Amino acid sequence: MSRHIQEITGGVTAPAGFRASAAAAGIKYPDRNDVALLVSDTPATAAGLFTTNRVKAAPVLLCQTRLKRGRAQAILINSGNANACTGPQGLLDSKATTRAAAAALNLPVESVLVGSTGTIGVPLPVDKLIKAIPAAVAALSRTGGDAAARAIMTTDTVDKQTAVRFQVDGRTVTLGGMCKGAGMIEPNMATMLCFLTTDAAISPAALRSALRESVEHSFNRISIDGDMSTNDTVILLANGAAGNRPLNPAHPAWPLFREALNRITLDLARRVVCDGEGATKCVTVTVDGARTPDDARRAARAICNSLLVKTSWFGGDPNWGRVICAAGYSGARLDPDKVDIAYDGKRAVKNGRRAPGFSLSTLEKILARKTFTLTVSLHLGQASHTMLTCDCSEEYVKINGSYTT
Amino acid sequence: MSRHIQEITGGVTAPAGFRASAAAAGIKYPDRNDVALLVSDTPATAAGLFTTNRVKAAPVLLCQTRLKRGRAQAILINSGNANACTGPQGLLDSKATTRAAAAALNLPVESVLVGSTGTIGVPLPVDKLIKAIPAAVAALSRTGGDAAARAIMTTDTVDKQTAVRFQVDGRTVTLGGMCKGAGMIEPNMATMLCFLTTDAAISPAALRSALRESVEHSFNRISIDGDMSTNDTVILLANGAAGNRPLNPAHPAWPLFREALNRITLDLARRVVCDGEGATKCVTVTVDGARTPDDARRAARAICNSLLVKTSWFGGDPNWGRVICAAGYSGARLDPDKVDIAYDGKRAVKNGRRAPGFSLSTLEKILARKTFTLTVSLHLGQASHTMLTCDCSEEYVKINGSYTT
Repeated sequence: MSRHIQEITGGVTAPAGFRASAAAAGIKYPDRNDVALLVSDTPATAAGLFTTNRVKAAPVLLCQTRLKRGRAQAILINSGNANACTGPQGLLDSKATTRAAAAALNLPVESVLVGSTGTIGVPLPVDKLIKAIPAAVAALSRTGGDAAARAIMTTDTVDKQTAVRFQVDGRTVTLGGMCKGAGMIEPNMATMLCFLTTDAAISPAALRSALRESVEHSFNRISIDGDMSTNDTVILLANGAAGNRPLNPAHPAWPLFREALNRITLDLARRVVCDGEGATKCVTVTVDGARTPDDARRAARAICNSLLVKTSWFGGDPNWGRVICAAGYSGARLDPDKVDIAYDGKRAVKNGRRAPGFSLSTLEKILARKTFTLTVSLHLGQASHTMLTCDCSEEYVKINGSYTT
Repeated sequence: MSRHIQEITGGVTAPAGFRASAAAAGIKYPDRNDVALLVSDTPATAAGLFTTNRVKAAPVLLCQTRLKRGRAQAILINSGNANACTGPQGLLDSKATTRAAAAALNLPVESVLVGSTGTIGVPLPVDKLIKAIPAAVAALSRTGGDAAARAIMTTDTVDKQTAVRFQVDGRTVTLGGMCKGAGMIEPNMATMLCFLTTDAAISPAALRSALRESVEHSFNRISIDGDMSTNDTVILLANGAAGNRPLNPAHPAWPLFREALNRITLDLARRVVCDGEGATKCVTVTVDGARTPDDARRAARAICNSLLVKTSWFGGDPNWGRVICAAGYSGARLDPDKVDIAYDGKRAVKNGRRAPGFSLSTLEKILARKTFTLTVSLHLGQASHTMLTCDCSEEYVKINGSYTT
């Protein structure tokens, strides 16, 4: 990491010219904030990435349409109801809430985006949501990022925020973000809503490409349970309040901006995995020596999604047999007699079987750690792929056996 | 089902000319039978199907080689150790145990097959296994099927046996089988060992094709946890003791034989799913109206493997949102606004959203049943696919978090 990038506290309101707030609409629970509002003082350049699930929630469809302009100024977000599988009425409902927010903020309706998370298949309680908008608008403040980050939580146990600061053209540029997500997490995003802000000036095309690259190396490389949501959303607003010359690939600070953005998204992705539903361990899985990048990705993904692997981690069991088994059915080319496996650099498997000097007690000590790395070396080529995942505990089953429709 | 096929009690020793037994080798636990021996009085026509995992256990590799001849007479099976990920030594070890069994039975070594199930990555304790062979040979009997079926269990809570009887050419033909498997169950077979016997005379090519078709519609359509094992094995021995004219596709009783075989494999597959590790519910998932058979298969499989779907079943929650979400990311073509979903024929979803007259309490009563069906209708074509699966409980995590290397 460049030492020119400084971590700071805060989230979406850390950059200049952004205000946020939270309000209680009583969507699912009576006594908690479940609406968040994020507003830029001026129209912002905007880019978004969304779920690749064929079943897309209404707010996703609406954002995809509105982001074609590459401009936005406000985002209205609710938890408690995903407005997914709600048919054409769902889209009308999402539009109605953005109309109400636009009116209250005195903005054109096309500049208001929307995000929803929560139960699938239940009509959005539009009236409740609209009734909460005036309070959310009244509460907007330069320090509202915290409240907004808490309002978008569902089964999350902690709010997830991050921000960094660096210099561009002698101006201080700040990048911030907030994120929610703890279950239904799988590459090609997660049941994850992520909202990023920056006061950098940046061209629309550059913003899109930087966001795409950054998500590819962060949110697209995490997995909690292998389920890909209908609502996954990452939106980045850049309002130019920092006063720098617009960033683009020709600007000398372009690499710095990309690094800062990658840092933010990776940090938020890590927070999502480590807060995975019922998770007790956060594991970095690397497959290297694969014939092709696709082979590396398939093997890493199969390992990260294997319920048998995840439950063995929960049990603190260095059950590398399940790891090699998952790589074996992943579709990746591999020669079982060439595979090496190491935990936190400590080799457990050499040439497909127990490594010489294999010590179960040493490995068990590593598996008892809250975070560790698992490296699977195929020795067939040069490609590698790294993913972040967590274990699967009884608590996960308890949470998801009772999170009712 | 044809009324000419009669269910009878018994398993692999129900057909004439087969003997079986069990013995204790102390492979993983000191005081249980963990070795099973199955022997035909005469050389039998033999066919087998095995895991498609790229990591294949030594006994799988050995059986694949020996079954090229299409003949076999005995099978030596052990639980407690899978002899998988054990390198070239693993293959030598499997061969050594078949040599010992062949010597004790006075048979050519090539006619002895082998199956192993249990922990992966630990060298097979060959000496222990070989030491138990004389006791197994001495115990061989016409009623030994029960003992053998119990000896091959690992996390299974019940032994799995089945047998049927029917007439061919005026002779009584019997088909029997035993099976083990409760975890790591996923299409293209399971951590599943299945041994089938029949006293029918049948040509080698006909035996192979009947077995392939039968497995495709039974063991390849069950899923417990989405993990595909290194050891999956289905072997069918036909010794001709019934004295019928050899069966083949031109024989008038060929459809009857195929039906009987399908019945046996489907029954054993059902027993495996209903005994899934920690399972409390057995669910039949059908996707119909798909554009292509592959679309139907993908959607059914994604639903059956979705941890969020399986945990909601455990919780008795008719969370159809998770069902449609899984279908959405399966890769199958679907139009969310055309999808219907029903539980035990009771419609929950019509055109992608809550069906008119949706009653949560009615659906909850269905979800409380030990077995129910879930039908997802895509309304895009004519293809359908049915799978059997189970829920995922806290007990599953407990079992697999503690089943140590």
